[in-house]
Amino acid sequence: MSEEKELETLDTRDFDAEVEEIIEMIEEKKYGRVRSAMIEYNAVDIAEILEEVNDHLGLDMVILIFRMLPKDLSVDVFAYLPEEEQVEIINGITQKEIDHIIEELAFDDMIDLLEELPANLVDKILMKTTREERRLINTFLNYPENSAGSLMTPDYIDLKKTMTVAESLKHIKEAGVDSETIYSCYVIDVVGRSLIGVVSLKALIMAEPDDLVEDLMHTEVMSVSVLTDQEEVSNIFKRYGLLALPVVDREGRLVGIITVDDIFEVIDEEATEDFQKMAGVTGAGDDEYLDMGVLKHVRTRLPWLFILMCSYMITGGIITSFENMLSSCISLVTYMPMLMGTGGNSGSQSSTLIIRGMATDEIDLKDIARVLWKEIRIGVLVGICLSILNFLRIIYIDGEPPMVALTVCGAMMIIVMLAKSAGAMLPMIAKAVHIDPALMAGPVVSSLTDMMSLGIYFLFASMVLGI
Amino acid sequence: MSEEKELETLDTRDFDAEVEEIIEMIEEKKYGRVRSAMIEYNAVDIAEILEEVNDHLGLDMVILIFRMLPKDLSVDVFAYLPEEEQVEIINGITQKEIDHIIEELAFDDMIDLLEELPANLVDKILMKTTREERRLINTFLNYPENSAGSLMTPDYIDLKKTMTVAESLKHIKEAGVDSETIYSCYVIDVVGRSLIGVVSLKALIMAEPDDLVEDLMHTEVMSVSVLTDQEEVSNIFKRYGLLALPVVDREGRLVGIITVDDIFEVIDEEATEDFQKMAGVTGAGDDEYLDMGVLKHVRTRLPWLFILMCSYMITGGIITSFENMLSSCISLVTYMPMLMGTGGNSGSQSSTLIIRGMATDEIDLKDIARVLWKEIRIGVLVGICLSILNFLRIIYIDGEPPMVALTVCGAMMIIVMLAKSAGAMLPMIAKAVHIDPALMAGPVVSSLTDMMSLGIYFLFASMVLGI
Repeated sequence: MSEEKELETLDTRDFDAEVEEIIEMIEEKKYGRVRSAMIEYNAVDIAEILEEVNDHLGLDMVILIFRMLPKDLSVDVFAYLPEEEQVEIINGITQKEIDHIIEELAFDDMIDLLEELPANLVDKILMKTTREERRLINTFLNYPENSAGSLMTPDYIDLKKTMTVAESLKHIKEAGVDSETIYSCYVIDVVGRSLIGVVSLKALIMAEPDDLVEDLMHTEVMSVSVLTDQEEVSNIFKRYGLLALPVVDREGRLVGIITVDDIFEVIDEEATEDFQKMAGVTGAGDDEYLDMGVLKHVRTRLPWLFILMCSYMITGGIITSFENMLSSCISLVTYMPMLMGTGGNSGSQSSTLIIRGMATDEIDLKDIARVLWKEIRIGVLVGICLSILNFLRIIYIDGEPPMVALTVCGAMMIIVMLAKSAGAMLPMIAKAVHIDPALMAGPVVSSLTDMMSLGIYFLFASMVLGI
Repeated sequence: MSEEKELETLDTRDFDAEVEEIIEMIEEKKYGRVRSAMIEYNAVDIAEILEEVNDHLGLDMVILIFRMLPKDLSVDVFAYLPEEEQVEIINGITQKEIDHIIEELAFDDMIDLLEELPANLVDKILMKTTREERRLINTFLNYPENSAGSLMTPDYIDLKKTMTVAESLKHIKEAGVDSETIYSCYVIDVVGRSLIGVVSLKALIMAEPDDLVEDLMHTEVMSVSVLTDQEEVSNIFKRYGLLALPVVDREGRLVGIITVDDIFEVIDEEATEDFQKMAGVTGAGDDEYLDMGVLKHVRTRLPWLFILMCSYMITGGIITSFENMLSSCISLVTYMPMLMGTGGNSGSQSSTLIIRGMATDEIDLKDIARVLWKEIRIGVLVGICLSILNFLRIIYIDGEPPMVALTVCGAMMIIVMLAKSAGAMLPMIAKAVHIDPALMAGPVVSSLTDMMSLGIYFLFASMVLGI
C-alpha cells in the first residue's frame, strides 16, 4: 500500500486540498502535526504552502512555521520563497539562524536576496563573511539586472587539462557538494584562468581512469559574456538544449556558470514581459498580478491608455471633417464600428504572429519582403471572403441599397489588406530602429488601423455615393 | 591566437554572415571547402545551415551536402532537421544509409520521424528492426499527440535497489552510451518493473563504492502518467527545476523518461499557441509562420474575423436604434472611436494579465473575487484620470459645450471600469466552464466592449442631453 501511495503521479494529486488541510491544522494550533505533514513535501512545495499561509494567516505565522522546519530543509525552502517573504523572515529570526541560512544558501540565491534587502540587514548578513567573499559578492551585485552576470553562480567544477579521469572524479567528489552542477565541468588554463574546454560528467564516467581530461574535453566551448542579455542566454539554452553555460569576462576568464533551472524562470519572465507589452501594460517588471497594489496597477496601465486615447483625437478629426457627409447619410455610421473592429482584429492577428516569430528567432529582419508579400496576399483573400459575406448581409438582412453595401465592402477589402500589411510591418520596422517589437501589438495596431479604416471608409463613401 | 578564436562568445559571433559564406561556396561548387567549413559547427548549427541551403538552393543540394558529412555527425544533424526535410532525405538516400541513420537515431527522434513518414517509407525503415523493437515502436506511435507518452524515450538507466554504488557506476558505464541521460537513474522493483526510487548520478559520485542504492535513493519520486498533457509536464519541470521526469503506465510501471531538452520545445510551443489564440488565429498548430502557405494562413485567420464581424451586427443595431439622436447631434459621432478604442484597450490589458497569470499558475479560479475587486478599483481610478484629461481636452481644444464633455467623460468613466472588470472576468469564467481562457483576449474582448461602450455612451447621451 505504501508503495502505491509513493507512486501517485504528480498530475493526479490534489495539492490545493492538501494545503487547505494544513492551514486548518495551523488554525487549530496542532503544530506537531503541521510539522510532520510539512516535512513530507519537498522544498518547492513547502515554499508554496508558506505563501498560502501568508495569504491566509499573515507573515508572523509564516515565520513561526518556518522556524519549526528542520534546519537544512529550511534553507532550501528559504531559497524558493518570494523576496518579500525572505526579507521578513530575515527580519524576524535570530542572528544565529541568519548565519546558518547564509552559510548554506547557494551563492546565486544569496545575491538575489542581498539585492532586495535594506542596508541594515545587508550588514547583518555580511557580518560573518570574509573579506574575499565580500569582494566577490560586491562584484556580483554590480552586474546589471537581466544580464548573464546576474544569473550566474561562481560555484562550478573546474578541472585542469593535465588531470586524469580518476583525479577529476576525486576532485568532483570533494568539490561537488557546494557546486550548482557537477554534470558539466570546465577546463581552465592554469595561468590565466581562461576557459579552454568543457567535459561532461558523462564523458568522464564512460572513459577509463587513466584517460586525460585533455583528450576528452571539447575545445569548441559555448560561452557568453557577463553582459549578455538574459533573453539571449535563454535562446542559446533552447537552441542547443544545454544543461549549463559558462560565462566569461572581457579577458576570456571563466567567472561563473548559468544552469538550466534558472533559465526556466527567465523564459517565463521574458514571455510575461512580452504579453504585458503587447497589452500596453508598462513597467510592471517581474511583479506578480496579485501581489501588485491597485496604485501600481494604475501606474502600469495609464500611460498607454492615455497615449492611445490622444491618438483618437486624429480619428475624431477625420470624423469632424466628414461630418456633413455623415449627417446626410447617417446609416454610414452604423458600419463604422464593424470596419474599425475588423481592421483592428486583422492587424492584431498579423502583428502578433510576427512579434512571436521574431521572439522565437524564426522570423528575421531579412525576411521583411517575404512577410509583406505573404500578408498582402493573405489580406486580399481574407478581405474578399469577408466582403462577399458582408455584402450579402447588408443587402439581404439590413436591406440597405446596393451602393451602401458596395461602399462598405469596398472599404473593408482595402482596410483588411492594409491592416494586415501594416500589422506585420510595424513590429519589423520597430525592430529595425531598435524599438521593442512587442510594443507594436494589439492596442497600438488597432488604434492606428482605426484611423486608417475611417479615412478609407469616408473617402470611399464620398467617391461612391458622391457626397 | 587559436585559443582566442575558440573563446569567441556565442553572443558576438555573426552566424548569419558565416552561413551566407557557406552558401556562396556551395554555389561556386567548392565542395571540399564546404565540407571542412561545415564540420567545424555542431549538429544544431549544421541543421540550420542546411535549412538555409534548402531555402536558397533547394532540397537536392541539401541531400548532396548531407551525404558529404561524416557518418556519425550526419545522424546528429538529421535529428535536428525539420520533419519535411527528414522525409526528403530518407527518400533521397540509399537503404544502407537509411539503416545507419535508424540504427544510431535516438528512440524518441525515430518516433517523431515515423509519425511523419508515408507508409512505404515506414516499411523501408522498419525492415531491419526486430519483432520486439517493432512492438515497442508501435506502442509509442499510439500515444496521443502532446501527451507525456509522445515526449518520452525508453532509453533510460534503471538500477536495482540492492546494487552497490560501484555496481551501479559499472552498469551506467555499460548502458550509458545509448541513454538519453545518465544523470538521473531510476530504481525499479525487480518483479513488477514498478518505479520505487530515483537516484542522481551526483549522489552516486559523492557516495562510497560500497554504499547501497537503496540507502541513497529518494522514494518520493515525481512522475507523470503516459497520458498527462505536455503543458502540465512542462509546468512540473519549471516548478521543480528538473532535468528529467519518469513516466509510468496505469499500473505504475516505468515506461520511459522525459528529458529537459525536449521541454524547451514544449514551452515555446505552448506559449506560441497562447499568442495565436489570443490574436484570434486558430488551427495553425506547430507550423512556423514562414513555412505556412497563404491559403493555410487564410484558413487560420478567417474564422474569428468572421465571427467577430458578425458580432458587430449587434453593435450596428445599437447605432441604428439611436440614429435620430445621432442625426440631431452629429458631434457625438466624433467621440465614438475614442470611447470604443479606450474601452477595448482597457479590457485587453486586464484580460491579457489574467490569461498570463492563469497560464503561469499564479492566478487561480478561487481568486476570482479578489481579481474582480482589484479591477473595479483600478478601473475607477484609471477611468477618473482619463476622464478628467479628456474633459479638459474636449472643452479647451475641441471647444464643445460642457454638456457634451460631461456626456463623453461620464460614459468613459463607466466604460473603463466595466471593460476592466469584464476583461478580467471573461478568461476566468471561460476557465470555469472549461473553455481555453486564451480565447478571451484582445479581439473577443474589444468586440464585446465595443458593443458595451456604444450602449453606455448613447444611453448616457440621451439622459444628459435629453435627446
